[in-house]
Amino acid sequence: MTAPILKNDIFLRSLMREPVPYTPLWLMRQAGRYLPEYNETRARAGSFLALAQNREYACEVTLQPLQRFDLDAAILFSDILTIPHAMGLGLDFVAGEGPRFAHPLRTEDDVKKLTVPDLSKLQYVFDAVSLIRKELDGKVPLIGFAGSPWTVGCYMVEGQGSTDYRMIKTMLYSRPDLLHRILEINTQSTLEYLNAQIQAGAQAVMIFDSWGGVLADGLFQEFSLSYTRRVLDGLIREHEGRVVPRIVFTKGGAQWIEQIAASGCDAVGLDWTANLGQVRQRVGDSVALQGNLDPMAMFGGEAAIRKEARRVIDDFGPVKNGGHVFNFGHGISRFTPPEAVTVLVDEVHTYSRSKHQA
Amino acid sequence: MTAPILKNDIFLRSLMREPVPYTPLWLMRQAGRYLPEYNETRARAGSFLALAQNREYACEVTLQPLQRFDLDAAILFSDILTIPHAMGLGLDFVAGEGPRFAHPLRTEDDVKKLTVPDLSKLQYVFDAVSLIRKELDGKVPLIGFAGSPWTVGCYMVEGQGSTDYRMIKTMLYSRPDLLHRILEINTQSTLEYLNAQIQAGAQAVMIFDSWGGVLADGLFQEFSLSYTRRVLDGLIREHEGRVVPRIVFTKGGAQWIEQIAASGCDAVGLDWTANLGQVRQRVGDSVALQGNLDPMAMFGGEAAIRKEARRVIDDFGPVKNGGHVFNFGHGISRFTPPEAVTVLVDEVHTYSRSKHQA
Repeated sequence: MTAPILKNDIFLRSLMREPVPYTPLWLMRQAGRYLPEYNETRARAGSFLALAQNREYACEVTLQPLQRFDLDAAILFSDILTIPHAMGLGLDFVAGEGPRFAHPLRTEDDVKKLTVPDLSKLQYVFDAVSLIRKELDGKVPLIGFAGSPWTVGCYMVEGQGSTDYRMIKTMLYSRPDLLHRILEINTQSTLEYLNAQIQAGAQAVMIFDSWGGVLADGLFQEFSLSYTRRVLDGLIREHEGRVVPRIVFTKGGAQWIEQIAASGCDAVGLDWTANLGQVRQRVGDSVALQGNLDPMAMFGGEAAIRKEARRVIDDFGPVKNGGHVFNFGHGISRFTPPEAVTVLVDEVHTYSRSKHQA
Repeated sequence: MTAPILKNDIFLRSLMREPVPYTPLWLMRQAGRYLPEYNETRARAGSFLALAQNREYACEVTLQPLQRFDLDAAILFSDILTIPHAMGLGLDFVAGEGPRFAHPLRTEDDVKKLTVPDLSKLQYVFDAVSLIRKELDGKVPLIGFAGSPWTVGCYMVEGQGSTDYRMIKTMLYSRPDLLHRILEINTQSTLEYLNAQIQAGAQAVMIFDSWGGVLADGLFQEFSLSYTRRVLDGLIREHEGRVVPRIVFTKGGAQWIEQIAASGCDAVGLDWTANLGQVRQRVGDSVALQGNLDPMAMFGGEAAIRKEARRVIDDFGPVKNGGHVFNFGHGISRFTPPEAVTVLVDEVHTYSRSKHQA
């Protein structure tokens, strides 16, 4: 296929530290429950999994926020748990409780049976990527994504969300060999999965290490970052004649920023506890930074949204060669009024122009 | 009263950066549900609140871990929510769900009615402190504590634990004046409360800023640290002829370590994501450090417990003038086998001797 010309590539250029006229933005979980039209499509699909596994539905909800807001990127509507589902762990989404696996990994036998899934079981994801690219028609770039091997492993061992990560940490401290085997398999699977997304048309990729920040210093490097690095090492670098930028987001990872920045990614996502100016001093301009508004600022009303957005842009400081992608430091809350997003997009696009030296 | 001579003051000396023969340790929530004898006393008391509000019960459970383990400090058995309970917010502990307030602060009117409680309503806490000191008979020092104004405020506005802090952050972003009023009242209350604990016999005090780490950079300083600093400024510095050291613990606060260290405290508590050696490089020897083992390491078996304890001690590095108090980076898990604590105490006391230059 010959791809249509990308009409707005400011997101890609900012990630690659090329001059841009303003700070681009997209929002984690921008296709989600705060949008009435999303809830309508989800109701038609019947369940979260049915929504994610049908390429027409996935395409429809991916495009919904772009119809409402002047966002600079689309992100594939999917879930970080598609890989373990394809491995046979039996994913289900329990209303009000989030994801749950019927067959979590708890015994040595469970771990020994685990294998890299046949990519054909994830074809629905790649089909969705292709369809979204077609429907986007070059409007903005499409981001593909996966969870980090560690973060996906947390769900595979815990079987669901956790507050103390006792199951996986018991394995980590008592049988690190078993955990390393899981992480090896996750690494290989994630690599194949992201490369297939790139081949299907993803123009940037993001690795969500949502739970890297629950690990002790030293163990984060051993059990999370080293595997993320191996995924990055194996990714297709160029596709359709253009570099495919990689973003790594570790929630609670600001203290490891130098090491994350050296992992082979083009950009690091940060949560709102970090100060972008201080982070920039620490890593120089070796990577772009993505973030980092507290999504709860969206509940403060228009003046607060504009003030807090400016605070993030001011913290990043003067821009010469891109390097900043505005985002939240976590997914948007389902309770966010959509009008608040309109205000945010306006403020980021308008206010940031003064910071860019073309 | 003339206090008995303190037989083991290694904890206090290490906090004040005086030479000690080994690294002292105590454990956050050391009097708790992982101990069968605690559960037995709690059953007799009937409820968590009845346990905390009766000085004999509170004394009994405070001393239980010291009978089992060679710990270097006792900590008052109480809760950070005693102050808002005394303010009339109606605290209850719902089984399996944690604390809940019958009357959370949600409206301007709620906030305007809030006042500093009469200390007589907290007399049961000071009575417990006096009784524990008597029963300890100089064995080890007793730590008093309170929540930070921000952390206690989170519970007062949310009404219970939270994952997104949407209620208090909505107030923060939309009506910061109301939140500042709550924090002012919490600050004054906390100050009086901790000083009364000191006068009743607390030999060190700790401020738990358990939720400081959920704030954005800039807002942490404005809404949490500035109020903690004011509490510290007003604390009684010496009692019974000895300095009363102050410890501040901000979960997820490693990125603000320089600012926390400059708040007027003698020691900073750290969670396990921080590397003690790197923190020490950043703050010099201006404060002692407390922490920072992942409490989940206790599920790894004896070899892992010893290895991870040594990792923390090695990370801190050579000790000349005290400066390290070993602890977890969070409360001990209720599922911890008590025998694991015996192993930990042995390893910390034994291994750390080689690091201390007397």
